[in-house]
Amino acid sequence: MLTFTLAGSDGRARAGLITTARGVIHTPQFMPVGTLGTVKAITPEELEALGAEIVLGNTYHLHLRPGEDVVAALGGLHRFMHWARPILTDSGGYQVFSLAALNRVDEEGVTFRNHLDGARVFLSPEKAIAIQQALGSDIQMCLDELVALPAEPARLQAALERTARWAARCKAAFREGVTAQEGAGALPPAGGPSLFGIVQGGTVLELRRQSAEQLQDIGFDGYAIGGLTVGEDRDAFSATLAHTAPLLPVQQPRYLMGAGEPEDLLEAIGAGIDLFDCVLPTRNARNGSLFTRRGKVSIKQVRHQRDAGPLDPECACPTCRNYSRGYLRHLFQSGEILAMRLNTLHNLHFYLSLMREARQAVLAGRYAAWAKAFLETYRSG
Amino acid sequence: MLTFTLAGSDGRARAGLITTARGVIHTPQFMPVGTLGTVKAITPEELEALGAEIVLGNTYHLHLRPGEDVVAALGGLHRFMHWARPILTDSGGYQVFSLAALNRVDEEGVTFRNHLDGARVFLSPEKAIAIQQALGSDIQMCLDELVALPAEPARLQAALERTARWAARCKAAFREGVTAQEGAGALPPAGGPSLFGIVQGGTVLELRRQSAEQLQDIGFDGYAIGGLTVGEDRDAFSATLAHTAPLLPVQQPRYLMGAGEPEDLLEAIGAGIDLFDCVLPTRNARNGSLFTRRGKVSIKQVRHQRDAGPLDPECACPTCRNYSRGYLRHLFQSGEILAMRLNTLHNLHFYLSLMREARQAVLAGRYAAWAKAFLETYRSG
Repeated sequence: MLTFTLAGSDGRARAGLITTARGVIHTPQFMPVGTLGTVKAITPEELEALGAEIVLGNTYHLHLRPGEDVVAALGGLHRFMHWARPILTDSGGYQVFSLAALNRVDEEGVTFRNHLDGARVFLSPEKAIAIQQALGSDIQMCLDELVALPAEPARLQAALERTARWAARCKAAFREGVTAQEGAGALPPAGGPSLFGIVQGGTVLELRRQSAEQLQDIGFDGYAIGGLTVGEDRDAFSATLAHTAPLLPVQQPRYLMGAGEPEDLLEAIGAGIDLFDCVLPTRNARNGSLFTRRGKVSIKQVRHQRDAGPLDPECACPTCRNYSRGYLRHLFQSGEILAMRLNTLHNLHFYLSLMREARQAVLAGRYAAWAKAFLETYRSG
Repeated sequence: MLTFTLAGSDGRARAGLITTARGVIHTPQFMPVGTLGTVKAITPEELEALGAEIVLGNTYHLHLRPGEDVVAALGGLHRFMHWARPILTDSGGYQVFSLAALNRVDEEGVTFRNHLDGARVFLSPEKAIAIQQALGSDIQMCLDELVALPAEPARLQAALERTARWAARCKAAFREGVTAQEGAGALPPAGGPSLFGIVQGGTVLELRRQSAEQLQDIGFDGYAIGGLTVGEDRDAFSATLAHTAPLLPVQQPRYLMGAGEPEDLLEAIGAGIDLFDCVLPTRNARNGSLFTRRGKVSIKQVRHQRDAGPLDPECACPTCRNYSRGYLRHLFQSGEILAMRLNTLHNLHFYLSLMREARQAVLAGRYAAWAKAFLETYRSG
């Protein structure tokens, strides 16, 4: 089980330490997404060198391929992917609602046809936990019911109440599973996994309050905010975030799921969020969209063809130290695998550095000024 | 210009040292193929860690994409791809004859439509050299005329005589280019590039003798055998190799172009060959075909699914040290980029280790016994 220590705060922004059996996570922290047991294009050694402290694994994807039984037979997700530090797994719920052909949602769980071969799959709170425990992740997530926005408040309310009932079932299944694993000596010596609840409620502030209270009544090791950056407008995002983050316990980690634009991350840190995950840095990298101090660069553009300078002169990543923009453009235009690698290294370095700098700014009591200056430069490109 | 020193020999097998301005190459040596300014899927740092001492760049591919003018503007091929050690470039001839839609071959050169967009391109001996000198490679190759086998001896003879005339033009263009680069201070301080001639003649032994003599009359820094492993049967390969290698100067490097099966390499080393290049280890890696001490392994097979052991228990490469067969299969089946990386690392490690062991066996005077034992194990899988 994790512990969370506040190292400092600045306004609502926090700098903390999450201690798990597999290592410490300095917050605010960004979790690179390792969908199928690999952060696409790079190795665990490269992740470590970039300073990554935790990665995210996707329960939905790993359940379908190779299956949690295979991962367990190969020693669990850490050994499988050769990553000894903490792993957070999601519940699979988001992918079921976004990728799969949804078949039926009822009180028992979700039935869907998967996106690979259309086979029917059933996911319940208990099953979502069982999969995550077979994977052996350090932070596990409750299965929640997602509602596509815009939605009627009544629909949102029904979903968040089901989310709370499912959260209680997840917690019971989680405890039972941990007890069984403890009995079998299958947990790390330093302690077992943690479980996070997920606050829903769309952009209706009163529903967010209800959801946050219901989940805290059940009691979790940390709390996530789900259902944001799913297409709502900027003001609704800001208002919901600013309203919801302070409803979560100060002494536990807070995780904003799926948000990824640098602007969103800085705003969320300012609102008191500690953890983030998003495919944006890795997916954009593979599409040739690269994050620099002065904004995004589309590396395929012909203006980079003979540019012998680095992608970002202010960047210390291996890509910027060793390669020119002209070479990066050539690799990308030629569809070379090395393009995906070098671009991914750079974008993740950007995100992980952003978190380190934000943390330093919080600890130095100058978060707002730092964030403002960062965004001014970022938008100036 | 390179120098070649024999460190030892065993029968016809040789262990040597090629010294170039950019570093030493221990022979026998395998050159990983870096078609478009990158050995597909891996970095120069990884190549160094694997012990690679020289890589091959493809003149045809780099001429089309990004163009030698772009590479030159970005500091030459070494700086472009961040590889400071020796590079050999081919002449482009093989790709013209194998990939492009051939339009016309006459005494002046070759006109073809390229494989990317069908645009018409002209390649002559002078142009092949000019491109290689713009790229800045350390070992450059003459443009030769290739003939598809089987072919009439008269056709083969005409081609090898044109090859000799083209070789003389290549040498003249090479000298002129080097002199101009020297004048411009554009060569490495330790010395300029070298030029190799290519022996042709199909599987007609008398024609191979003629070609070898004609090229030595012109005089090159090293000699390659072209036009083998292009579909001829095993006996013809062996007979041509055994006949041709001893026709080449003892005091200069000998390079068998394009041969790649481990059996072929060991036979060629036994015949006195020093250098090899082939896409086999890297291309097979990307197709999931992996070389082990006990033969090739198709990693996609379901029998590997729950195999927690390494791909090759006798292998010290990063892939075998850190990952299970089950994980490698999962990555490959999921189309993950990491599959291409880990497989390529392993296969190149296999080839480069094979060369190191062969060299040690030559120096120890036990090459034939070592090769026999290696092949027995290799075929036992």
